[in-house]
Amino acid sequence: MDEAAETIADPDDPRLEPYTKMRERDLVGRAGRFIVEGEVTLRLLLGARARFRSESILLAPERWPGLAPDVAASAEPPPVYLAAKPVMSAVTGFPIHRGVLAVGLRGPEPDPAALVPPAPAPALVLGLAGLTNHDNVGAAFRNAAAFGADAVLLDAASCDPLYRKSIRVSAGAALIQPFARLAPEQDWLALAEALDLEALALTPGAAESLDALAVPARVLLILGTEGPGLDATTLSRARPVRIPMAPGFDSLNVATAAGIALQTIARGQGRLVSAV
Amino acid sequence: MDEAAETIADPDDPRLEPYTKMRERDLVGRAGRFIVEGEVTLRLLLGARARFRSESILLAPERWPGLAPDVAASAEPPPVYLAAKPVMSAVTGFPIHRGVLAVGLRGPEPDPAALVPPAPAPALVLGLAGLTNHDNVGAAFRNAAAFGADAVLLDAASCDPLYRKSIRVSAGAALIQPFARLAPEQDWLALAEALDLEALALTPGAAESLDALAVPARVLLILGTEGPGLDATTLSRARPVRIPMAPGFDSLNVATAAGIALQTIARGQGRLVSAV
Repeated sequence: MDEAAETIADPDDPRLEPYTKMRERDLVGRAGRFIVEGEVTLRLLLGARARFRSESILLAPERWPGLAPDVAASAEPPPVYLAAKPVMSAVTGFPIHRGVLAVGLRGPEPDPAALVPPAPAPALVLGLAGLTNHDNVGAAFRNAAAFGADAVLLDAASCDPLYRKSIRVSAGAALIQPFARLAPEQDWLALAEALDLEALALTPGAAESLDALAVPARVLLILGTEGPGLDATTLSRARPVRIPMAPGFDSLNVATAAGIALQTIARGQGRLVSAV
Repeated sequence: MDEAAETIADPDDPRLEPYTKMRERDLVGRAGRFIVEGEVTLRLLLGARARFRSESILLAPERWPGLAPDVAASAEPPPVYLAAKPVMSAVTGFPIHRGVLAVGLRGPEPDPAALVPPAPAPALVLGLAGLTNHDNVGAAFRNAAAFGADAVLLDAASCDPLYRKSIRVSAGAALIQPFARLAPEQDWLALAEALDLEALALTPGAAESLDALAVPARVLLILGTEGPGLDATTLSRARPVRIPMAPGFDSLNVATAAGIALQTIARGQGRLVSAV
């Protein structure tokens, strides 16, 4: 057992305060903190590509030997607390099965412009407009990471990628995929123009198919919610494109649509690994 | 109000028996029946592409005028019962918000061979191996329908596409997308051979990229669960292919991976609508 880990037996220990009432806090927020669950995700939080600092880690004692090397190798090893699963469950307020939790710190919100490679370098940016479902936001992040998007931008209406469920559904991609949020009054098309990106609006009714597209070197791909879709103003000013589908069932989940469109664009920009 | 709809005020009315204890029955099964929720899904159950008969429909009275034309146009209009939402909630055992329910009848299970167009016609079949998550099965069905797969085949370990949550996540695709289940001892590769299909096994470690593939005219695309993936026997006998991804985060949801691979193959087979 490494001396860097401290065993805690008292669920009321003040060092565990950020882990208390976990589900209630999912609803009201955590003021600059977020919760990471599970081994794969914790490794991403500690790894070289992580965008956030970890404030502390809380493990069931049997999980520590397997994770100690990751903590030791991290740029800023956080304190590690060990507590038996019943103590962890008492702290969090629900049964803890995997025994791996951590608290991350959001830090300052980046400016969207800071995340986009400057022209004339190639750029691929995913824009999420009005995505209020945590599963969809998490799944879109997972796909953005899988296809090497430079950044994800979210409008003010979209939900939080660092919400516990978003992180889980993202398979941890929310911790490594650069993202920023638009200001409430910020306009997608003005932003695209300022960053020298071609704005593509994904919409099933578009005349232009993504497969026929000569992929631009610098793309902002904007997606809206299933159902209402993107607002008419954005659609009229961006270049509408659609995913080619079979006749008769033109219905895709928004995150799946993001994945397919990102793959097509990333391939066209030469971002994907074609050989092992 | 159409005379074909009968108002029911008593939650104990025996005609509503199939709608009772809805959540408990999700766990133990319904012996040949399944539940459909929501307007979009009900329209698919009643429409020309539906693969199942409807035993009855249960609507909040205000939903009936909008749906009456769909019932009238269906091949075998089922009885329609109208009940106020509090009655519906009392019957089902949880709060009913949308006020649209129906009971479908599974009918006999088709033989997998009956669903696959005979050679030498093109064929695209999705095989799901060991998918025990209803969200993933539902999402895979949605993608199979979007990209025009002829059939979905499921091994004995995969979960039920007609489970309530599977249907919902499939956006109703489970009601129109032909599917069949393999027998417990049935082998994917023997089946592919018998049906003259080339078996492609999707796996991140494959040397061959889907993008470089000369798409075969007749494909069985097999996917396993995230994590363990496909068993070694299937992998060694099928042709392993992978989805090209960005370096560093080779992680896709299994249903998303199915969607991307199906799109690539369907495009190669000329199944997709390239112009509006």
